[in-house]
Amino acid sequence: MILDNIKIIGFDADDTLWVNEPHYREAEEAYATLLNKYRPEDKVSQALFRTEMNNLALYGFGAKSFILSMIENAVHMSNLDVTSREIYKIIEIGKQLLKQPIELLPSVTEVLETLYGKYKLIVATKGDLLDQERKLEKSGLAKYFYRMEVMSDKKPENYQKLLNHLDCKPEEFLMVGNSMKSDVLPPLELGSKAIHVPYHTTWEHETTTISPDVSDNFKIIKTLSDILNLR
Amino acid sequence: MILDNIKIIGFDADDTLWVNEPHYREAEEAYATLLNKYRPEDKVSQALFRTEMNNLALYGFGAKSFILSMIENAVHMSNLDVTSREIYKIIEIGKQLLKQPIELLPSVTEVLETLYGKYKLIVATKGDLLDQERKLEKSGLAKYFYRMEVMSDKKPENYQKLLNHLDCKPEEFLMVGNSMKSDVLPPLELGSKAIHVPYHTTWEHETTTISPDVSDNFKIIKTLSDILNLR
Repeated sequence: MILDNIKIIGFDADDTLWVNEPHYREAEEAYATLLNKYRPEDKVSQALFRTEMNNLALYGFGAKSFILSMIENAVHMSNLDVTSREIYKIIEIGKQLLKQPIELLPSVTEVLETLYGKYKLIVATKGDLLDQERKLEKSGLAKYFYRMEVMSDKKPENYQKLLNHLDCKPEEFLMVGNSMKSDVLPPLELGSKAIHVPYHTTWEHETTTISPDVSDNFKIIKTLSDILNLR
Repeated sequence: MILDNIKIIGFDADDTLWVNEPHYREAEEAYATLLNKYRPEDKVSQALFRTEMNNLALYGFGAKSFILSMIENAVHMSNLDVTSREIYKIIEIGKQLLKQPIELLPSVTEVLETLYGKYKLIVATKGDLLDQERKLEKSGLAKYFYRMEVMSDKKPENYQKLLNHLDCKPEEFLMVGNSMKSDVLPPLELGSKAIHVPYHTTWEHETTTISPDVSDNFKIIKTLSDILNLR
């Protein structure tokens, strides 16, 4: 019974509650198309990922980091030939990303409606603070959550801090999310429980080959509503 | 007695615990010098502030927003003539800003050492989540604080949320900081107490002409150590 003794359920946000990664892919495609006069699209995309990874320790996760890395990578890809008009277009692509409307994933409202009141529900996400707060606001889901915690990363120590602040024992916490690396493995390491809801598109940074065995502490579900039928 | 009944003391971070705004000014000067072939330095700086304000709702506060606004403003100031080499230099100026060593303000350690254990101390700041966490880590002050709360803004509703999460009544909270607009007025509005420690350099966005009368709830001190002698 994975929900036994659980007091707080943490939900990841992007690609767990609402569509996110496909918007980043679209932005990246528009960006690669803009620069295809300098280098082929796939090279631009691969180099962008490397630039993002090089900047990760300094910039952290989120949309603004992504925009800054797109700009830096454009300078490299063009061999210093990128025009200021193209730089401006990259900024525009980034701003569009920040303005995306929120599209809830199937059965999210139903699931939250059912769990609300029975458990303390929180959003546990990483990325830009303001961007994530705005997405929660736009989603209309804020009313179900006791709080949203935006973390600079989702490593075990970040979850440990979160549990300390919530005054919650590890075994009373269940995390639900689409990223095995960020939403499942770290909580399990702390002795919390986790449910994996895979999403069809995953950012390269979040991929991992590690997959723990299904147990009383860990389940995999196909769609969020399956959470209501777990035994 | 401003400390009477206080349980939690919140400290602003930038220009309250450590030097910050002067680093932004230096970055801005380097930026304006870089672009002075297109427009005079003062025009570049004024336009940068306007660009930052235009982007504030979308980007929020912090270093990455500042870098993105510098890039966007360079495109405008140069009338689309800014070179990709100059864009790269702007990114470098921004990265330098993120890598600044931490210089503590006078008597910060002494004050925290004295208050620690008597009150629950927190850092309440706005800006980039990762950047602020990193600065706290680099400062060596993390051990004094129960937690650091990075807020997307410092309006009364943000403080209200903070108090809710801390399970703290407004009258049990004292905020200490250099910004009248962000650290003093909002907590006072909620019924909390506030201490203003002015800093010689203030970002234009934080300036205000409003100044409440000194009272049992509000004091102005010259240097942080004065907090230990307040009656």
